Amino acid sequence: MANIRDVAQRAGVSVSTVSNLLNGRTNRMRPETLARIEAAITELQFSPNRAARQLKTGQVNMLGLLVPSIVNPSFAELAHEIDIAAKQHGYRVLLGNTYRNQEEERTFLNDLLSQGIRGMIVVSTMTEQSHFHDAIARGLVMVNYDMQTHPDSPKRSVISDSISMDNFQAGKIAAQHLINRGCQNIAFVTESGKTVSRMNRISGFIHAAQQSDLSDHYRIIEGKARFGYGDAEMTELGKALAKTISQQATPPDGIVAVNDVMAIGLIAGFRAAGIRVPEDISVVGIDNTFLTSLITPALTSVAPPLTEIATVMVDRLIARLDDPAIEVEEFLFLPELVIRESVVD
Amino acid sequence: MANIRDVAQRAGVSVSTVSNLLNGRTNRMRPETLARIEAAITELQFSPNRAARQLKTGQVNMLGLLVPSIVNPSFAELAHEIDIAAKQHGYRVLLGNTYRNQEEERTFLNDLLSQGIRGMIVVSTMTEQSHFHDAIARGLVMVNYDMQTHPDSPKRSVISDSISMDNFQAGKIAAQHLINRGCQNIAFVTESGKTVSRMNRISGFIHAAQQSDLSDHYRIIEGKARFGYGDAEMTELGKALAKTISQQATPPDGIVAVNDVMAIGLIAGFRAAGIRVPEDISVVGIDNTFLTSLITPALTSVAPPLTEIATVMVDRLIARLDDPAIEVEEFLFLPELVIRESVVD
Repeated sequence: MANIRDVAQRAGVSVSTVSNLLNGRTNRMRPETLARIEAAITELQFSPNRAARQLKTGQVNMLGLLVPSIVNPSFAELAHEIDIAAKQHGYRVLLGNTYRNQEEERTFLNDLLSQGIRGMIVVSTMTEQSHFHDAIARGLVMVNYDMQTHPDSPKRSVISDSISMDNFQAGKIAAQHLINRGCQNIAFVTESGKTVSRMNRISGFIHAAQQSDLSDHYRIIEGKARFGYGDAEMTELGKALAKTISQQATPPDGIVAVNDVMAIGLIAGFRAAGIRVPEDISVVGIDNTFLTSLITPALTSVAPPLTEIATVMVDRLIARLDDPAIEVEEFLFLPELVIRESVVD
Repeated sequence: MANIRDVAQRAGVSVSTVSNLLNGRTNRMRPETLARIEAAITELQFSPNRAARQLKTGQVNMLGLLVPSIVNPSFAELAHEIDIAAKQHGYRVLLGNTYRNQEEERTFLNDLLSQGIRGMIVVSTMTEQSHFHDAIARGLVMVNYDMQTHPDSPKRSVISDSISMDNFQAGKIAAQHLINRGCQNIAFVTESGKTVSRMNRISGFIHAAQQSDLSDHYRIIEGKARFGYGDAEMTELGKALAKTISQQATPPDGIVAVNDVMAIGLIAGFRAAGIRVPEDISVVGIDNTFLTSLITPALTSVAPPLTEIATVMVDRLIARLDDPAIEVEEFLFLPELVIRESVVD
């Protein structure tokens, strides 16, 4: 493989002259010299090693992306949108799966810093923890997804931009849809691990129920998943909870599931228990992943505007890489209900 | 943020002594000096910039991973296993989604090279094309997934290691299962884009049919997906093909779908057409993604041993980074049938 010396030799110039070109210092270079070097670069298929330039510019064109698990379709779809948005800025995405495990997160943060990567998108993880503070102190720039502050809690010390679907609205819109369609006894079904986004979804659900005639007829049903980072095990939990619910004296007639994979497990579990969806129990999901149209009945779900969200996250992160002093902000995106077949008419 | 000079000052040594430690040249260093530098590194939370070391060692601890689309669960599950295997070697994964688009692939290859990344796992893409040859000529080291050579074709010029599920066996095992369960008239349903893995699956299917009494009662049913890189659109294609199949004079009684997402679309489409699975038509998927247990009936599917495959891919890639001259090999992993509910008893 050609190196900078090969290029210099081919072009008949010194290594430092080639280096000047690679670093944009061409204002004092004669046009014919510049042309000779560029021809040599092309002929030798020389790929200037960005690592070498990085020592001078401090830039690597990569962003870190930390997700609990890429196998979860909502994270995979978000990663896909982030990849597209990043490419438009000439950036690539370095992926980290962390299974909501602090040690994995810490290792990923250290790896980013030691690779010279300074920008990172953190999905669905508690960034208030000390290892994130440490990483920011060491120069990492962050944008959070789905770390909206809880509306009932005092404003916390926010350490980085936060971009989310409005999860309170998501829970509220889903519950209101059930109420509008005539459900009398609604439940929110969730994994018991309390991420901020889950708490906000629950708050929105409760708000809608309390504002309606159902103020005494709503409940939160929780179950514990083995790991809690949300792939297939969430569907298993949904199946198990469906069984429990089907044995209740007065089961709910409408359910908001904390996410689509939980909703899909509930529907499979209800089918196994002889309960019809939506005739006996209506189900609404949240996230609107591609899974919604894989199942029967197709799942009504609350959709985040993922393309917009990914675009703002990447734009914001790159702006902050240029100017780390810009003020920290919270961006909320209004979700939309996508009506399919899983709620009674 | 602390730099190498801060560490040197704190430890009371020269910068070049710290550099010696960072580059493993400690054999002539006094133990107390070594301890002092390590203490300074810890106290200052110094993160040696790998980019600087890379200039000496030529190494970046990252692997490129090129997939058609991370939204496809079989690629997401593979990416997850590769991430785990890579971490055990201290490597991180840089992700590229390429939608089977040559220009996207070329850009990703160039980005890897210019970031100093030399190792890459390529999933389900035709690496016989010139841009891959070019990248190898420029120093990239590659391992292919799912690029098994076709058993009926002459051995091609293999340019890099190839690691796959034995797709011929996958098609064969799936067809044999249908035949063993009494199906009399079987079909292989696929997207019409001919990747090597699809052709091998079809060959295995045909082989099993011809070896049985069904030699005149098998067929290949194809449809064209809009993009052909295999996420939700594959399910839509399955639904559309199910409609076509349900209108045939003699529809098949057993189907091998080219992958799980196609199978799921077929099952949804049959349900909409009033055809029962498995009572009227049995369906077998290939890939055994977590989707198999999300749907009803749960999908019988052929499973690649993903953990083993990912481990061998990463081990092999890292071995080749150390010694690019090791001989190119093809590794085939035998798949296993996972029986669920979508095939008649």
